[in-house]
Amino acid sequence: VRVALHRGAGVALGIDVGRRHVRVALADFSHTVLAERYRGFAVPLESAQAIDTVTRLAAEVLDEAAVGEAEIAGIGMGVPGALHRVSGAVGDATLLPGWEGVDVAATISGALGRPVELENDANLGALSESMWGAGRGVEDLTYLKVATGVGAGFILRGHPYQGACGTAGEIGHTVIDPRGAVCRCGNRGCLETMASSPAILAALAASYGEQLSIADVLARARAGDPGCGRAIADAGQAIGAAVATVCNLLNPRLVIVGGDLLPAGELLLEPLRAAVREQAIRSAATDVQVVPGELGERTDVLGAVALVLRRGAELLPPARTAV
Amino acid sequence: VRVALHRGAGVALGIDVGRRHVRVALADFSHTVLAERYRGFAVPLESAQAIDTVTRLAAEVLDEAAVGEAEIAGIGMGVPGALHRVSGAVGDATLLPGWEGVDVAATISGALGRPVELENDANLGALSESMWGAGRGVEDLTYLKVATGVGAGFILRGHPYQGACGTAGEIGHTVIDPRGAVCRCGNRGCLETMASSPAILAALAASYGEQLSIADVLARARAGDPGCGRAIADAGQAIGAAVATVCNLLNPRLVIVGGDLLPAGELLLEPLRAAVREQAIRSAATDVQVVPGELGERTDVLGAVALVLRRGAELLPPARTAV
Repeated sequence: VRVALHRGAGVALGIDVGRRHVRVALADFSHTVLAERYRGFAVPLESAQAIDTVTRLAAEVLDEAAVGEAEIAGIGMGVPGALHRVSGAVGDATLLPGWEGVDVAATISGALGRPVELENDANLGALSESMWGAGRGVEDLTYLKVATGVGAGFILRGHPYQGACGTAGEIGHTVIDPRGAVCRCGNRGCLETMASSPAILAALAASYGEQLSIADVLARARAGDPGCGRAIADAGQAIGAAVATVCNLLNPRLVIVGGDLLPAGELLLEPLRAAVREQAIRSAATDVQVVPGELGERTDVLGAVALVLRRGAELLPPARTAV
Repeated sequence: VRVALHRGAGVALGIDVGRRHVRVALADFSHTVLAERYRGFAVPLESAQAIDTVTRLAAEVLDEAAVGEAEIAGIGMGVPGALHRVSGAVGDATLLPGWEGVDVAATISGALGRPVELENDANLGALSESMWGAGRGVEDLTYLKVATGVGAGFILRGHPYQGACGTAGEIGHTVIDPRGAVCRCGNRGCLETMASSPAILAALAASYGEQLSIADVLARARAGDPGCGRAIADAGQAIGAAVATVCNLLNPRLVIVGGDLLPAGELLLEPLRAAVREQAIRSAATDVQVVPGELGERTDVLGAVALVLRRGAELLPPARTAV
C-alpha cells in the first residue's frame, strides 16, 4: 500500500474532532507523519471552539513542517457520529453538542481554504487499521470503536463501505434487550445503552457514586476490582451480541476493537469473544477473529490522513508517482 | 443490463432447489427464457431425490429447447441456507434434511457433466430482483426471503456481497428477543423463531390446531380473519426489527421483500415498515424504501440463471458479444 511521491505532490492534513479533543496530523505521500498536535478539553466541544482549535493546530503543524497552505493536497476529517452524504450534514446520531445540521466540511474548508473530506470516526478507524494496523492484508473486516458511543466501520472486499447515503455502521443502535433502557435514538435497549462509556459509568453509579471516570474504571478493573471488572465484562458481552449479528449478516474475517475501552484488554475482549462464539451461527463464528486495534489514540487522525493518501494514490497521474 | 450474443455463446441453466420443490430454467444470453420446469413435493426433499429430479428436469428443458448438453455455458444453482465457500459444503444453517456437509455443487456437476456455481437462495433473489425486478438501477439494496427460513441477500455498490467466506445475509438469526424461544442455531429469540413459516404456524397452533398450512393462513388473513392477520402482522413487526438493524448497519436504499409470505402483501409490509420507521435511526429509516419483490415464485431460478449470465457477460471475449 505504500506509495512514494516527491514532495511536490503535497501533504495530507488529517483532523480528528472528538467530543473532548482535537487531534491534527500532517503527512506526506510516502506515509511519513511530519507533525502532530493534540488538544484535550474538560467539557464537550462546541462547534465554534472546535473549528477555532482545528485551524490553530493546523497552522502549527504546517509551521513545524515548514509547509505552506498551498501544498495541502487534501484534508480528511473525522467526527463522531453518522454523516449523511446526501444532505452533507452531521446526522441525528452525532455525539457533538450543537453540531446537528451544521455543514462541518464547508465550515472547516472555509477556515482552511481547502476542500475537506468528512468521515465518521469508526469508518476512519477501519481505514487506518486496514492500512497500517491489525487489518493489513484482510479484505473483509469490521472495525469497532467503543467509546462515548459505539460505532462500526466496514472494509468489504478491500474497500470502505458506508452505505447508500453514508450512515452505515451504526452498530450502537443494535437492540440487545428490547425491554432495556431508553436510547437517545428513540429505541430501547440499544447497544449504546449497555456498552458505551456513559452506560458503564451509569451501571456503576449505584454502588460507586457518580465521580468515577472511564479511566478510573479501567484502572480499577485491571487492579482486580470485581465491580469494575464485571461492568467491563457486561459491556464486552453486550458488544459481542451485536458483533454476532454483524458476523451473521456480513461474515467478516476479522473484527478489530478500538476506542476508549480498549485498554481493558482481555477483560473486555474475552467476554466479547465468548458472546460471539455463543450467539453467531457456527460457521460465521468460526470464520472470524476478534483482535485489538494497533493504532491506539492515533487511530482516527491516521484514518483522516489515510482518506487523503488513498484519494491521492487513486487520482494522481502515474507520471507523478516517481520518487 | 441486457447483453446480446449469438446462440453459439451457449445457454444458461438455472436450478432452484427448495425444501419441497425443484425448479429449472434454461435461458440464452439475450436474457430469453427458452424453457422452464417445476416439480413440487409433499415432504421435504432428500438430497438423492433432489439430484435425480434436477437431472431429469434439466434433460427436459434441454430437450424442449432443442439444445445439447455441450451448449450449456454454465449452471447456476440455488439452495436454501448458508454456503461456505472455503469448505464448499452446505453450511450448518441449511434447511435441507440430510444435506449438511454434502458437496452439492460437485454432486450436481457430476450428474450434468458441467461445472455448477452454487448460491444461497436469498443471494439469488437479490441478484434477480436487482437485474430484472424491483431493484433495477439501485446500487445498494437488501433482498429478504421470508419463507421456511428468513434469509437476506445484499447488493452493495452494484455487486452481490457474500462476506469473507460466503455466509453473509443470515438475518434469520438476528436476536429479536433474548428471552424468546430456542432456535436451531443454538441461540434464543432469533427472527426465525418469530417470523418463519413454521414460527407463524406454531404461534397459531394453540387456537387453530395444527392442520393449517401457510397458504391457509395467508388466505384467511386476506379474508379478514383477525387471528391469522395478527400472526402475519407480528411476523412483519419482528422482520421489521431485524431490518432496522440492517438499515443501521448497511444503510440500504431499498429493501425488497420476497418469499412465501409475500402474498400477505400490506398485511405483512405495513407492520414491517412501521417497525423500521420506529426502530432504525432516523436518517437510515428515511433513506430506505421497503417494497415487495416483483419476480414471485421464479425469483430464485431466475437468480440462478442470472449467476451464469453475469459471469458470461464478464468472461466472454468482446468479439463474441456481436449479435
